Amino acid sequence: MFGMFVWTRSAMVGFQLPNCLQSQCFFMGITVAQVDKEISKLLKLKAQLEDDGKHQFVLKTAKGTRDYNPKQMAIRERVFNTIISSFKRHGAETIDTPVFELKETLTGKYGEDSKLIYDLKDQGGELLSLRYDLTVPFARYLAMNKITNIKRYHIAKVYRRDNPAMTRGRYREFYQCDFDIAGQYDSMVPDAECLRIVYEILSELDLGEFRVKVNDRRILDGMFAVCGVPDDMFRTICSTVDKLDKIPWEDVKREMVNDKGLSEEAADQIGEYVSMQGGMDLAERLLQDQKMSRSKQACAGLSDIKLLFSYLQLFQVTDKVVFDLSLARGLDYYTGVIYEAVLCQAGAASSPADVHNSTFSVECVSVGSVAGGGRYDGLVGMFDPNGKKVPCVGVSIGIERIFSFMEQKAEDLALKIRTTEVQVMVASAQKNLMEERLKLVTELWNAGIKAEVLYKKNPKLLSQLQHCEESGIPLVAILGEQELQDGVVKLRVVATREEVDISRSDLVEEIRRRT
Amino acid sequence: MFGMFVWTRSAMVGFQLPNCLQSQCFFMGITVAQVDKEISKLLKLKAQLEDDGKHQFVLKTAKGTRDYNPKQMAIRERVFNTIISSFKRHGAETIDTPVFELKETLTGKYGEDSKLIYDLKDQGGELLSLRYDLTVPFARYLAMNKITNIKRYHIAKVYRRDNPAMTRGRYREFYQCDFDIAGQYDSMVPDAECLRIVYEILSELDLGEFRVKVNDRRILDGMFAVCGVPDDMFRTICSTVDKLDKIPWEDVKREMVNDKGLSEEAADQIGEYVSMQGGMDLAERLLQDQKMSRSKQACAGLSDIKLLFSYLQLFQVTDKVVFDLSLARGLDYYTGVIYEAVLCQAGAASSPADVHNSTFSVECVSVGSVAGGGRYDGLVGMFDPNGKKVPCVGVSIGIERIFSFMEQKAEDLALKIRTTEVQVMVASAQKNLMEERLKLVTELWNAGIKAEVLYKKNPKLLSQLQHCEESGIPLVAILGEQELQDGVVKLRVVATREEVDISRSDLVEEIRRRT
Repeated sequence: MFGMFVWTRSAMVGFQLPNCLQSQCFFMGITVAQVDKEISKLLKLKAQLEDDGKHQFVLKTAKGTRDYNPKQMAIRERVFNTIISSFKRHGAETIDTPVFELKETLTGKYGEDSKLIYDLKDQGGELLSLRYDLTVPFARYLAMNKITNIKRYHIAKVYRRDNPAMTRGRYREFYQCDFDIAGQYDSMVPDAECLRIVYEILSELDLGEFRVKVNDRRILDGMFAVCGVPDDMFRTICSTVDKLDKIPWEDVKREMVNDKGLSEEAADQIGEYVSMQGGMDLAERLLQDQKMSRSKQACAGLSDIKLLFSYLQLFQVTDKVVFDLSLARGLDYYTGVIYEAVLCQAGAASSPADVHNSTFSVECVSVGSVAGGGRYDGLVGMFDPNGKKVPCVGVSIGIERIFSFMEQKAEDLALKIRTTEVQVMVASAQKNLMEERLKLVTELWNAGIKAEVLYKKNPKLLSQLQHCEESGIPLVAILGEQELQDGVVKLRVVATREEVDISRSDLVEEIRRRT
Repeated sequence: MFGMFVWTRSAMVGFQLPNCLQSQCFFMGITVAQVDKEISKLLKLKAQLEDDGKHQFVLKTAKGTRDYNPKQMAIRERVFNTIISSFKRHGAETIDTPVFELKETLTGKYGEDSKLIYDLKDQGGELLSLRYDLTVPFARYLAMNKITNIKRYHIAKVYRRDNPAMTRGRYREFYQCDFDIAGQYDSMVPDAECLRIVYEILSELDLGEFRVKVNDRRILDGMFAVCGVPDDMFRTICSTVDKLDKIPWEDVKREMVNDKGLSEEAADQIGEYVSMQGGMDLAERLLQDQKMSRSKQACAGLSDIKLLFSYLQLFQVTDKVVFDLSLARGLDYYTGVIYEAVLCQAGAASSPADVHNSTFSVECVSVGSVAGGGRYDGLVGMFDPNGKKVPCVGVSIGIERIFSFMEQKAEDLALKIRTTEVQVMVASAQKNLMEERLKLVTELWNAGIKAEVLYKKNPKLLSQLQHCEESGIPLVAILGEQELQDGVVKLRVVATREEVDISRSDLVEEIRRRT
């Protein structure tokens, strides 16, 4: 069989394609295996062609991705700790899933965004794609393991072949921090807890003023219906409304009417609704709205928004939450409440009035979304062989923008960020004490002290002290002939230059006491 | 141009291949773009062939990968904490790199293993591959940022299209925990610290008896030279020697002689050396060995092994470290010391004699490698435009096998593993107290207490208590009309069923005191 497919490179005149292509396999029933063989031969040919191009090696990371250096990692660790603390405070477990899924697991879940999915090369075996978010893998996990109740968080990287805007924290590889509650529960309680978590995290990270916009897919759909949008245009009009946080209404309207063929009248009616923002009062008002109240769907959504706000009051978070009819998240899988948190431009946010006050105003010029989520009651059922539904609601913290913000802040304040936790440096002022230094550092490691030595036989005391200054090590344990003879170590406090002789047997305790 | 390449499906008799293949493009100068077009057409054809198979959606993770459930995550977190503590004790910073690299970054680094690299599909733009280890991305990071000195750890997943053996902890997606020291230092000090770290981690994880085998690439190459292996066969013979931990010497010899064409005489000489194990004494003996001492390379390696063992003594780890001439790690990039840690079969390991005793014996039947590494002084230079070298040495902890081991142990001992950290459940025995429960849980969250409520309006007390039993929540704060009237909360200890009324204002303190 193999002989049939052999191909040869004819040295002077270029390449010959695989023999197969010239002859046998044109007529009748070619198999997948044969196609695979053809592909692999063409790829070899391509590799050879490329080699011939004397191509220059480029030293970089892939487009839209970045390394994290130790300083960035230190910031990242702090942000994660804050987020994980909040997730744990609310009783979440954690899970992990593989970075790639079967391609078909992701198919049909992301609407227009599906084109941004990274596929793996077909190297034989299954067709795979990198995960696009953590929600679809979560739903797959629930269906696969027949789990109907769980409160879990998942922090991991996801992948999107989007246009990167790295200075604004938009990458092709980026972290998501997801918290989700799956299970059949009384309406709006888990939904409200998700919003409480967003509130806690954004407050604790101290990112400045923020708002959490809330809406409901059913209100959007009901609104589209009563405004005269044809059923089959709901999703595409919804995508256009979703752009309202980036472009002005005029442009959104133009896209609806000119590009998507919506009637100007319908667009104008939508325009009236999507300019509305408020709290529980707005939901009440819309329930009385002549047009809106004609849609059962919209009424169901509005009643739930009312209930949601009543829980949000108990959770003490209503000062930041806004019911906003322009919020329309792009993903296909949402079925109920949706929300999105945005940071406000510094100085532009006045303290918002009580949401029950009908003069509620939302003075927040958004500088970008940092969290989002909603209810997706149908997604798990898409994976279950019997279509069994597991209602879910969740939130995803958009950590990259938060990192960018924190990095900028650290830079602005010229903060010194330690990237190690070393408590003490074992040093010497004299030559030939390397062995003694290694012995002492071993004693310290044995006691669980974080300690370093320089890897030089005879380092200068100055360079040992400099290393402490640079990496923020607070103490130096200095050994010399005299100290060894006396059974002591000279302990130096880097900040004050204070030095004190400590008996070797007390050293560990003394270091613990001082750090 | 496109028309030329159109292909059609002839409905009844099967498929026709792209027109191009039949005609124009055989002779002279086919381009990469043309090959790409052919490939994309063949892939479409393949997809159609597969679709025709009325393919059933399969609910699974990709071959060789797995999800981590909350119990597994709890174990993973514990293992990571132990490892990270050790890395931090030795003053390491941490970095992160993207999950994929430019394909060419990985090219030419892994020898025969390169075929196991996962490539991403060419969707336009750069050609990318998933990282195969963390060492090559680290070297790329150093060269790219012109870093000549760093001690860093990196914990992340890597990807290999290997044959999975998941029950033994071999996956296609798996964690590596790497610690590396880059920089020009006095010989063997950082190398010894890496071994100290392996020793610490394996001891602290309490995995039972283990050994760390040590060898040196220069000793291997010198040995091959003096045994009469032709220069151009070093690498391939080295790969065969590498199999000695899995197959007996007879099979290794057969592969060398029959498959690789080595002379029987050379193979027998290698056989004598690779059966040798010992400590510093063995290095001394081999430095006197008539044959071995003829190789300058081998002598350099042997002297370094002696020096290494002298530092290992100071670091108090020689009881587990064995100089083993059969150790030959597969990767291309090692240039000096190499090492590998193996777990010993329970019961099969006797306490090894002092390594300085010439009757040193290594009673350890290996049940698999759990860590490995070595010195790679040339790798960073491969990325630097001027070939500037940065000497590096590092170790990688093979965490998956450790997870398997720990999971098995937890199962054997029927350990109860908590997957959340909730301190208290806010419960009620009476109806219509949902709002009061939500108010109280909010008070607790505000105080940083980890607390839960059930998301039901009127849950039974029994089901609230059951939830505590199941997830190991130690305390229940019970609210009833009477308690609300008295301004108290009934605090119940789940384990003892003891109940005590606590004034609402003291509740947070009381919970903190008890957890």
